[in-house]
Amino acid sequence: MVKKIAVLPGDGIGPEIVDEGVKILRVVAETFGYRFSFRFGMVGGGAIDRVGNPLPQETLDLCRDSDAVLLGAVGGPRWDDNPPELRPEKALLRLRKELGLYANLRPAMLFEGMEESSTLRPEVLRGVDLIVVRELTGGIYFGEKRRERSEEGEKATDTLVYHEWEIERIARRAFDIARGRRKRVTSVDKANVLESSRLWRSVVNRVAEDYPDVELEHMLVDNCAMQVVRKPAHFDVIVTENMFGDILSDETAILTGSIGMLPSASLGDGSFGLYEPVHGSAPDIAGQGVANPVATILSVAMMLRHSFGYEEAARAVEQAVRSVLAAGYRTADLAPSGDLAIGTEEFGDRVAEAI
Amino acid sequence: MVKKIAVLPGDGIGPEIVDEGVKILRVVAETFGYRFSFRFGMVGGGAIDRVGNPLPQETLDLCRDSDAVLLGAVGGPRWDDNPPELRPEKALLRLRKELGLYANLRPAMLFEGMEESSTLRPEVLRGVDLIVVRELTGGIYFGEKRRERSEEGEKATDTLVYHEWEIERIARRAFDIARGRRKRVTSVDKANVLESSRLWRSVVNRVAEDYPDVELEHMLVDNCAMQVVRKPAHFDVIVTENMFGDILSDETAILTGSIGMLPSASLGDGSFGLYEPVHGSAPDIAGQGVANPVATILSVAMMLRHSFGYEEAARAVEQAVRSVLAAGYRTADLAPSGDLAIGTEEFGDRVAEAI
Ligand SMILES: CC(C)[C@H](C(=O)O)[C@@H](O)C(=O)O
Ligand SMILES: CC(C)[C@H](C(=O)O)[C@@H](O)C(=O)O
Repeated sequence: MVKKIAVLPGDGIGPEIVDEGVKILRVVAETFGYRFSFRFGMVGGGAIDRVGNPLPQETLDLCRDSDAVLLGAVGGPRWDDNPPELRPEKALLRLRKELGLYANLRPAMLFEGMEESSTLRPEVLRGVDLIVVRELTGGIYFGEKRRERSEEGEKATDTLVYHEWEIERIARRAFDIARGRRKRVTSVDKANVLESSRLWRSVVNRVAEDYPDVELEHMLVDNCAMQVVRKPAHFDVIVTENMFGDILSDETAILTGSIGMLPSASLGDGSFGLYEPVHGSAPDIAGQGVANPVATILSVAMMLRHSFGYEEAARAVEQAVRSVLAAGYRTADLAPSGDLAIGTEEFGDRVAEAI
Repeated sequence: MVKKIAVLPGDGIGPEIVDEGVKILRVVAETFGYRFSFRFGMVGGGAIDRVGNPLPQETLDLCRDSDAVLLGAVGGPRWDDNPPELRPEKALLRLRKELGLYANLRPAMLFEGMEESSTLRPEVLRGVDLIVVRELTGGIYFGEKRRERSEEGEKATDTLVYHEWEIERIARRAFDIARGRRKRVTSVDKANVLESSRLWRSVVNRVAEDYPDVELEHMLVDNCAMQVVRKPAHFDVIVTENMFGDILSDETAILTGSIGMLPSASLGDGSFGLYEPVHGSAPDIAGQGVANPVATILSVAMMLRHSFGYEEAARAVEQAVRSVLAAGYRTADLAPSGDLAIGTEEFGDRVAEAI
């Protein structure tokens, strides 16, 4: 059976890193006898420039007609002053919402030999293997927004809304994931201030009753922002709302040495998923062939696992990344002095060979 | 002239650490010939237990009739399930709002010899000296909150509101502070998603025109959460809204070795201010005499500087803390193996002696 993959390279370094992702998928197809079809779509700033819409209808249709989406990155200074509806990021938000991708999985683990790239002490990094499960289609990202003028001047409003059912399904997802791991869930909120966090906490407590084998702790977001860099090995599964998840998952980049290492999967209820690196479009290094393709390649591994159920292939890709890193190969973001760095394409080739 | 200080010890370790703060103020009075009067008030959980209100009217009146407030910490598991109005933290929020303390200053600097207490590599910590200027009386902390029931189940709403004038005054404060420092302001927002952040950014840009000598950069909050632990020495003044400031300032604890080191000042337009450690009430170690009093003592130094204009005394206190730490004295939170740790009171005595 052919798996249909929609490929959305996007802006900045997006096309370069996505090329490596596709390369890896082709090698996986050959090696394991799978069949993939690739269809490309426009998204982000490039789509704004060409058709005046960061997420053209045909791109959305393409995604809907696919088994999985591989996305590069969107955005850049060129579109930073655009009105909200014409910002590249709007495409991401709409894709997530329209495709019902409410569960964003962001694993952070340390690859052997990468300790030296982190600003944390090596002994603190020992045993780090956590995953942030971020709610992705609710909260302040999607609540009503308003701008008003009065005699007092301008006033802007954002609204953070959570429904019980939204919290329940993401909590279940987190507990299910924890069952396949070290069986500890840390639910992060700001229950001492936010009403939505108090609802969050009570729903998570209720869901926890169905998972007596999983340990649950609650942590305030300010404390968690500290603990993640103080005792990172403490964490197994962190489940949290959209904005806190955005902040905390970027912070965990420090655990892996570079944000260039962090993959993500955005899932709904079925097997369909969108896979993208956590890092952005990095316009400053775009087109130079120096971007780190690891986050994209690991996102591809997540696609193989979560959307296609190809666990063996997923592991092979992860193992290949591990071995290339262990052999000392690094892109510029990771090479301490920059002198030993290899390019995006060469890194991808080495991973491909290793598979 | 007698400076009137309201002292609110609060819950948990609050009374122990506040004792050391008062001790230092007495020594400063003797040494420099200043006069302070101390009047104590109830706040937080203790006040809930005694009079059913986390911030009794008499405490608020006491603060209003003072030149500065020294606050310990509030909260504990005992009150965690209370309804919002009967939570200890409500006292902090009401104090800030009622007293108009919109500017929260949270400096993070590294004291000599403290590198080993941080989980960051020593070379990353070199030159770290930043201050988070957090907006404290607006945003999602004070917007409308709602809980509703429908057929869909429960729904909770929080509202994030910012007025132009609220952003303008905190931005000016940040630029003024930067002028007395390294002249760099990093304004943190989430302008690619939030309407309030877009207003934030445009107002900060406007204010910046009055400070051509100060360099301004904008940074997204997710990126900042990463950069703060990746390149902390990059930052001078970080200005941000209430919730982002809460998260980022706690994260900066890692730069100082312990959250037990972080002081704060909450200021309005005049010289009146509220001073409190950033850490909480730490119920797990309360009453044992092991809490770290440094954050409180440094908060006292901020009081001397910002509310009383006693710059020389402020520096003497900071210098005293520096010398006690440099001599190798540590409380349990900082002593790597715990064996060399001294208690709260002894630490306070040593700082007092050093003044
Ligand atoms: C680009 C932005 C809208 C997005 C987000 O905040 O979700 C990004 O930071 C991410 O984490 O995927
Ligand atoms: C206790 C809590 C309400 C408070 C806050 O979030 O402001 C605390 O975390 C702080 O930073 O002073």
